[in-house]
Parts: sequence; structure tokens; C-alpha cells
Amino acid sequence: MSESMPAPGALLTDHYQLTMIDAYLARDMRDEAVFEFFVRRLPDCRSFLMAAGLEQLLDYLEELHFTAEEIEWLASTGHFSSRLTNYLADFRFRGEVRAMAEGTLVFENEPLVQVTASLPEAQLIESRLINLLNFQTMIASKAARSVLAQPGKLLVDFGMRRAHGAEAGLLAARASYIAGFAGTATLLAASKFGIPSYGTMAHSFVQAHDAEIDALEHFARCFPDKTVLLIDTYDAPAAAIAVAELAVRLREEGIRIGGVRIDSGDLAQLAAEVRQVLDANGGEELIIFASGNLDEYALAEDFRDSPVDGYGIGTRLDVSADAPYLDCAYKLQEYAGRARRKVSAGKETWPGRKQVFRRRDPTGRLQGDVVAVEDDTQGGEPLLSAVMRNGKRLAVSPPLEVIRKRAAVQLDSLPPALREPRARGTYPVEIAASLRALAAAVDRAHR
Amino acid sequence: MSESMPAPGALLTDHYQLTMIDAYLARDMRDEAVFEFFVRRLPDCRSFLMAAGLEQLLDYLEELHFTAEEIEWLASTGHFSSRLTNYLADFRFRGEVRAMAEGTLVFENEPLVQVTASLPEAQLIESRLINLLNFQTMIASKAARSVLAQPGKLLVDFGMRRAHGAEAGLLAARASYIAGFAGTATLLAASKFGIPSYGTMAHSFVQAHDAEIDALEHFARCFPDKTVLLIDTYDAPAAAIAVAELAVRLREEGIRIGGVRIDSGDLAQLAAEVRQVLDANGGEELIIFASGNLDEYALAEDFRDSPVDGYGIGTRLDVSADAPYLDCAYKLQEYAGRARRKVSAGKETWPGRKQVFRRRDPTGRLQGDVVAVEDDTQGGEPLLSAVMRNGKRLAVSPPLEVIRKRAAVQLDSLPPALREPRARGTYPVEIAASLRALAAAVDRAHR
Repeated sequence: MSESMPAPGALLTDHYQLTMIDAYLARDMRDEAVFEFFVRRLPDCRSFLMAAGLEQLLDYLEELHFTAEEIEWLASTGHFSSRLTNYLADFRFRGEVRAMAEGTLVFENEPLVQVTASLPEAQLIESRLINLLNFQTMIASKAARSVLAQPGKLLVDFGMRRAHGAEAGLLAARASYIAGFAGTATLLAASKFGIPSYGTMAHSFVQAHDAEIDALEHFARCFPDKTVLLIDTYDAPAAAIAVAELAVRLREEGIRIGGVRIDSGDLAQLAAEVRQVLDANGGEELIIFASGNLDEYALAEDFRDSPVDGYGIGTRLDVSADAPYLDCAYKLQEYAGRARRKVSAGKETWPGRKQVFRRRDPTGRLQGDVVAVEDDTQGGEPLLSAVMRNGKRLAVSPPLEVIRKRAAVQLDSLPPALREPRARGTYPVEIAASLRALAAAVDRAHR
Repeated sequence: MSESMPAPGALLTDHYQLTMIDAYLARDMRDEAVFEFFVRRLPDCRSFLMAAGLEQLLDYLEELHFTAEEIEWLASTGHFSSRLTNYLADFRFRGEVRAMAEGTLVFENEPLVQVTASLPEAQLIESRLINLLNFQTMIASKAARSVLAQPGKLLVDFGMRRAHGAEAGLLAARASYIAGFAGTATLLAASKFGIPSYGTMAHSFVQAHDAEIDALEHFARCFPDKTVLLIDTYDAPAAAIAVAELAVRLREEGIRIGGVRIDSGDLAQLAAEVRQVLDANGGEELIIFASGNLDEYALAEDFRDSPVDGYGIGTRLDVSADAPYLDCAYKLQEYAGRARRKVSAGKETWPGRKQVFRRRDPTGRLQGDVVAVEDDTQGGEPLLSAVMRNGKRLAVSPPLEVIRKRAAVQLDSLPPALREPRARGTYPVEIAASLRALAAAVDRAHR
């Protein structure tokens, strides 16, 4: 199935974008504008972020247009002039986009995306651009922390039900897969993005049967190839013994049970107990899968030497519970050839078109970044490159597997001080002399 | 425009719903099942919740079906039998729904929604049902707290850009409007739901002009009917003086400036300062609108006696930052005429079909609720009533304005101990003797 999502339409924007454009048009302010999307400050509980969401942004920019019905509705509100509605009726995004590749590690004040377009165009896209980049970057960052906490373990996104709406559930699956999750429970993500889907049974399945072991045997017979059985509806250790015995019995019929899932109580303690009774009853080959209120803190702390083989990570991942938003912004950096700067208290921005240069040690480990004006000749790897021109992608987007591999390489290069969930190390992000000089020049010009 | 949203499709469900249904069908387990959606425990920072999202749930249930393409994809995965795909190809939801009206105050262990349908039908809808009810209930509850903190003030939802995806932005506008907000910045919510939209300009508008006052005058001339001008791009008090003078000057031409907006720095202190300079320069009629990192705690504490006339509440509302998910569940309560119960540690459920009875004092103020078996003859107002039968709504849904008025009446009836943002009062929710007796009977039968 196609990768595109049901588009929410061009009206998914803020009222003020249209009033501003209306006023820009009144003065024919259509010169070239440069906006950049960046995170002002990382949340206190994050030592790195992972860029994600560019693919959906480019989809949005390529498809963005107003239907006749939408134009009619806008006109009917009485808020906007016919000058505006005429402009929007023909609107297509024709700008240029430079961006960090998805899966790239990113830090404060570093532009992830730079948009160059006529002022009204660049303005119109602000709200949805932030909406797309904030969410997936936040989720990929959160998911990467679980990957670092349990390297090599099977991690599955279980969070759609408590994600904030349909799109959040869908895109959380994508972002966590990029970060290194093995898959998701969300079938729509499997069909749209080709992400492996996982899932077996809920407590209701067991409850709907009169006897627990009857429910489990019935399910194993329906799915004879290594299914995972939920054992904590009533008494998990007792059910584990029954499943171990069932596995031995069904093996003779060619039916293989894959393992057991526990979803409530003190999961780490229960897992140890379940491992013991499985092993003592012929269930050595059965894996243990744990789910229920898990996140990277639990994975790193409660399950450090746990016999658990795989984890379902749900709600706290899909809502990024400890940091449910990023302090991110999309700001005007240049208009009509002149660098611009906002100086509001606590929200000052660095002006102008920028590039991020990354330095690594000889082993490839990240050493520090420099944020500079775009044509600065800093050493290091430049992280932003052109991905869209004249409103069209410059290349076919990379498959999700490629992005996922890039993300894994990026995580490998993360300094040790930033890898633990409670790490408070700060990655060095230097503002280049070239950028400081530009900021000073802008300030002088404004005074 | 229509109230329907772009449907994410039937595949927005969890993998395990389909494996369970596959197994139910293998044994022809299609007897009547009763599931209920409820919140197990309120977040520590909530003293009440407000039910919302029923309308979108009923839309989903009426429209739910699998397209040929979706069925083909399911078959292609190799995970599911043709028995399942044949069943799903003809699937329509034919069940019954009883529910609390949107806008109703709700507390722990109280079913908001009860679904009665054949077991596979009731199972299939679980994931999206939770996804819809969790989010809007969470947002309406959060928004209601701001309404209580600044009664009578103009509150506007500004949060779409950092909401978790498109649907979250759209539905946060709806939920906060139900709770008493005046409107939203999100145009899509205005077009879909008829919610008033608000918005003027961003900092980029001011920055794109060479001089701030030129930008503001230009904007005021474009929108001569009480527009609000953003004054904190550089120096808010200085800009406030300029706007006050501008307002006096433009009034002679018939152009009315409505007020000023501040969006950064210490907003409460800045507002006091701005009010003073406005009043001292002929701008007594100009209102002050504040936005930027606001929530109910700030509204109740920092702005208690503030001259601010209206507030834009954004990110922290739309992500429910202090409680970004509810500990909610959709659980099997009865199957084939027998009450069922999950007894997993910490996640025990009360079995059977339930009703919530609410008691009020003579002034109408809430006194306490009783959760009882459905046919209990408790006194008090029963909160759940039938809204859907045989998969169809029993009545046309109430207009949003009616729901909003109901919510306002509900908030009026909230006891004083629960009204403050930091209130830690506990509302009495009693489990009726009838329900305790049923639970004991279920436990005996299981042993």
C-alpha cells in the first residue's frame, strides 16, 4: 500500500498564517525568505535528539493545495480578503528545502530543516511543518533511549491506543522503527510503511474462555508457529507451569509455542520467577516478553540483568511521557537578502542561513558541532543538504531500512556520557565566530 | 463543511485484535460480549475528568469497514487465515453503545462507554476506541482547569503546532472548546466543527518589515476591525507606547486597533507594565492578550489579578503536558451471559454491566457517585444511556454548542475542593454492594 497518509488538508494551519499572508500580499512582500526549524533547548531529560519526520514534511509540501471547497469556506468566514483567497486558490509550494537526513543526531540550536521560498509560501507551511517535525523527532529520540538501554533486545511499539489520535499512533510506529525498534503492534503502520507487526492476545481473550489453559491451548493451535501466550490474567507463575507443560505436549503434534507474555505487577521480579518455573518444567526454549508501563528508565534500571527477551513499549513512548513536546521553533532568518533576528526575552534567535558542521574523533565518535553561517569554511561534516527544489524532491526518498541503519550508526557514535537514560552530559554545540559576527551586525542595523 | 475527518481506515488497530478474532472465529465464539471503557485511576494532578470523544467514536463505529485493498493486504501478510479475512470483508459494527454524554464530569472506575456486541465485533474496535476517548477526555479535562482558573476570560487554543500530529491538533481544538474555550487558532477545526478561529500575526511578520511600527501600522490597516498587534519582537513596553499612539491616530481614519499581544518573557510582569503605558498614552481601550508557555497553573497563580484580558494556551494544553495519558482501559465485563473479571496484580476490574448513579445536594452541587450493577435501584441520576443500537446512532448528535453548555453546567456543579489546579480533594466514588457481590460471585466461580 502507498506510503501516503490521509492528508488533513491545507486548512491544518493557524489562522494567523493567513492573516499575515493577506497583509504580505497587500504590499506585495513576496521576496525570498529563509526560515529554519530548530530546537532552542533540549528537554532536561534528554541528552540528544534524533531527527525524524522529514519524509512526511516533503509529502506535505509536494501535495499542499487548497480545494475549491476550502477556498469557498475561507471566503465565507469573512476574515480574509479576495486577494488572499485568489492567491491560495493557485497555491503550490515552489520553494527549496535543505535538511538533516532522518536518523541524524541533533542538538540545541541546530537547524534540522531550512526552507527558502517567497515569504508567503514559507510562512504558510509553518504550523504543519512544526507539527510533523516536533512529533517524530520527539518520538525517535525517546525510542532511541530504549534501544540504548537494551541493545540487541526485541523492542516493539505498543502505544497506539494512548497515542494522541490516529496520526500520532501511525507516526510513532515509524519514528520508533527508525530509532531501532523491531516493529509495532499497529497494523496501519505495517501496511503504510512496511514495518513488521507483532501481537498475540489480550486479557479479554483469556477471560472470554471458561478456563485459562483452554484459552491458551486454543490460541496455540490456531497459531502453531511460535506464538506468544499471555499468562498473567490470573496467576502468572501457575500459568507459566501450565504453558511449559503445554509446549512439551503440543511439540509432539508439531505445534511450537514461542513464549509467554507478562503485562502487570512487578514485571522484573515476575520475569525472574517465570523464567525459573519455565526452565524447571521443560520450557527452556520459551522466551519471555514483557509489557506494561515500560520505558527506557525501567529498561535500564529494573531489567538490567533480566531474563526478559523482548519488550512491548507503549504509552510512555508514544506520548513521550517525560518530555511530551520539544522547545522547537520555525523562525525567519533572512528576508529580501537581509538577515533577521528575533530578540524577545528568552527567545533570541541566531540570524541568517546556517550550516551545522560535525566533528568526530578517529574512531568516528562525535566530538562536537559548530553552528555557522552557511558559507562558513568550518571543517567537519556539513549536516544540512538540499532535498527539495522548486517544490519537488531532488531524489527518491530512502527506504525506511536505510534510514534505520543510518540511525543505528549514529547511535553507535554517541559519546558514552550521553547514552544512559539519566545522563546529564552536554554535547558541545559551538556558535561559530561567523554567526556571532552576523548577529552583531543585525543588531547594529536594527538600532 | 462536514464534521467527518479523513478516516485513518480499519487497519488503525492492533495486530493482536485480529489474531484474537481469528481464534474466536475458529471456535465460533460470537456470543454477546460487554466491554466498558473507564479510567482506573485519575492522574495525581487531576481531581476530575471531563468525558469527550464520543462523537468521533460513533462516527468510527458507523463507518468502520475494510476495503478490498485492506483485505488483500491482510491476506498478503501471512499472519491471518482466510476465515478471518472473509469475516472482515463483510464486517460492519452492529452492536449497542451506552455512554455518558460528552461534557459530563467523570471519576475513577466509572465507565464512560459500554459496548455490547458479538465478541469479535467488540474486540476489533478496542484500539481506536481507546485512542479516541483517551485523548479528547484528557484534553477536555485539562482545558476545563484553565476555564476554572480564569472564569469569564477569553481562552483560545494555540497548540496545534506541537500537538501530536494532525488529528491531535484538530481534536484538541474540539475538546477545549467543549470545556469552555472561546475558540482555536486551528482553521481546520473552525471549518470542521464551526469553532470560532482567532489569530493575528507572528514575530516573523514584524521581522520581515524593516521597522516594527511600520509592520504594525500596515497590519492594522489590512485588518481595520479590532485586530490585535504583537508587540514583543524587540521591546514590548516601547512598542506598547507606539501602538497606543497609533491607535489614537488611526481612529480618526475609522481604523480600530483591538489590542496587543505579548508572547515572551515574564508575561505577568510585562502585562502590568504594558497596561500602565497603554493607559498613559491613550490606549485605555486596548486589550492585552498573553500567550507563551501558559497553562492552568500559570493562569491561577501568576495571573490571579492580572490586567490580561485573554490568553492563548498552546503546547501544554494540546499535549496535556502534566498528564499526557490517562490510565484508562476497555475491558471485557461479560461474555455469553456470564460476568468476567481480570485479577492481574494492580489491574483488577469490577465485573459485569454497570451504571453510574450521581447524587447532588439541593443546590445541584455534586455529592458523590455510586458505581453499581446496571439494574441496581440506587437513587441518583444514572449517567450512562443508550446512544447506538444495531450499529446506528439512536439520535442525531447534539450540536457542539449544546455539549459546551452542558460542560459549563457540569463545571458549575463541581465541589470547591476540586476546582483549583493544585486541588488534591478526592471525589467520593462508591462501589455499590451489588457490584461487590457480583465480583465475589465471579471469583468463587473461577476458583
